[in-house]
Amino acid sequence: MFSEKLECLGRSKKSTKAQRGPDAVLDRVAACVLEAIDECDLQVKQARGLGIGAPGACDPDSGTVIFAPNLGWKHFPLKKELEKRLNLPVFIENDCNLQTLGVYAKELQSKPKSLVGIFLGTGIGAGIILDGKPFSGFNRTAGEIGHMVLQVGGPKCACGNRGCFEALASRSAIFKMIESAVKDGQKTALTDLLGPGLEDMRSGDLRKAIKRGDKLVERIVEEAAEYTGIAVANVINLLNPEVVVIGGGLMDALEDDMMAIIVETAHDYAMNGTDHGIEILPSKLGDDAGITGGAVLAKRQTK
Amino acid sequence: MFSEKLECLGRSKKSTKAQRGPDAVLDRVAACVLEAIDECDLQVKQARGLGIGAPGACDPDSGTVIFAPNLGWKHFPLKKELEKRLNLPVFIENDCNLQTLGVYAKELQSKPKSLVGIFLGTGIGAGIILDGKPFSGFNRTAGEIGHMVLQVGGPKCACGNRGCFEALASRSAIFKMIESAVKDGQKTALTDLLGPGLEDMRSGDLRKAIKRGDKLVERIVEEAAEYTGIAVANVINLLNPEVVVIGGGLMDALEDDMMAIIVETAHDYAMNGTDHGIEILPSKLGDDAGITGGAVLAKRQTK
Repeated sequence: MFSEKLECLGRSKKSTKAQRGPDAVLDRVAACVLEAIDECDLQVKQARGLGIGAPGACDPDSGTVIFAPNLGWKHFPLKKELEKRLNLPVFIENDCNLQTLGVYAKELQSKPKSLVGIFLGTGIGAGIILDGKPFSGFNRTAGEIGHMVLQVGGPKCACGNRGCFEALASRSAIFKMIESAVKDGQKTALTDLLGPGLEDMRSGDLRKAIKRGDKLVERIVEEAAEYTGIAVANVINLLNPEVVVIGGGLMDALEDDMMAIIVETAHDYAMNGTDHGIEILPSKLGDDAGITGGAVLAKRQTK
Repeated sequence: MFSEKLECLGRSKKSTKAQRGPDAVLDRVAACVLEAIDECDLQVKQARGLGIGAPGACDPDSGTVIFAPNLGWKHFPLKKELEKRLNLPVFIENDCNLQTLGVYAKELQSKPKSLVGIFLGTGIGAGIILDGKPFSGFNRTAGEIGHMVLQVGGPKCACGNRGCFEALASRSAIFKMIESAVKDGQKTALTDLLGPGLEDMRSGDLRKAIKRGDKLVERIVEEAAEYTGIAVANVINLLNPEVVVIGGGLMDALEDDMMAIIVETAHDYAMNGTDHGIEILPSKLGDDAGITGGAVLAKRQTK
């Protein structure tokens, strides 16, 4: 729950539980919204609207999620279904676009004319903001940077191709490389921390291992940062945005280890003259980027 | 010289001769414009304006070429200098943006909301048209797709990096691979056509060699087409334009050998659901794309 001035007044968090089907997901979203409002000692009728992000292609005009592979949704009327449950105007947007919108509105005082937000987590996605508005392209899928090929013939990606950015630098890719190194007999502090099977490995564990002087984890994280820098350079060469922001759970945990390498590599690979004055920044909003973007969306649409 | 309806009434062509310095280049451009007007039995005062493309970052508002490495120009007042020489309103734009604008206005009846034009020649560049207007980004260098990395650690590029699209699929890259294969003792019909030193090799010679059943040239051209398809997929994943057009001298000569592979590879590498309905087309305008774009620019600005 946010104020007019984009201050967070209260919050609530729930896992999606997509495997229970869309009705259960909608009920959980609605309950989560009501909890956040209650947390602020307010009532639904005092809220102006709800802005929500979905992990897939969204049509904000019709309020439909066109497709969201991880939820198994196709042409799903998210706006209508949530408005039924909440008696509030609902506005939808792709989750990465929403996060980037949050960064734009709350974090960047310069209000750049063009902004790309790259979010490193289990997967990798991006949002594009042009003239203050999300840009989503023909099929509303712009920003699928995780599947930009950086290394033809490189490691296998979940999408079926090889050498995608996501297969080289996401949390899943890093975990896979560590697991494979451990199987090959390489040593890492992570086995002391988590046991020989590396159960429940999280981004924060990588941070701890590096602090303990773990050279294997350090090298793998540095390589992921280099690939991220090359991806940023590709974005600068192709789109030439005024600002590139890097966020997501992996970044939140490993900013100290990754950010300097990302920036240096991006400038190395950006064509001479294309990167002058372009800012490459870490987002400090963390998980709040998305909900802030939701508030911006609702505020804009109910003016 | 173009009519209001974008019909070409007459033309003239001159090499740039950048090594003679900017004054000589400007004189040659001015002479070329006068020849084209004379070719139509018209006079300068009957022309409404001149639209011109420069190979580099351009600021259309101030009429300045910010930098054009191949000409050795930096902050060069192209508009002002040509207006002095021609007594005509002059409008400037990046050359790849101008070509893409020409394709948009003359070749694409659908007037897509978003269009990327990729031009394969000695180098590789791209133009981006959003809502009918060139998009050039913060440093006016958007569209430098030739330096998008597709193959980290791949072949050396003229820009100093490795694995750029241009180092994998441009005419120069193809020629280099053929020359290196010939040095390694591989056989090609090109040595019959051009002599053992492969002097003055052109795109058309590749076409001739393939027609003669030259397997070496065929394989190298097919690989370049595959890399181009992957670059197109990267553009679809990131920007999701409604239409992607492929042009340039290499494409003009080798469309029959490259286009089907480009389209198939692009669909293979575009993420599932992102490429639905997106058209990937060869431009039929050839050299005329740029001059048509120039006419569109001049027409729009003098309305």
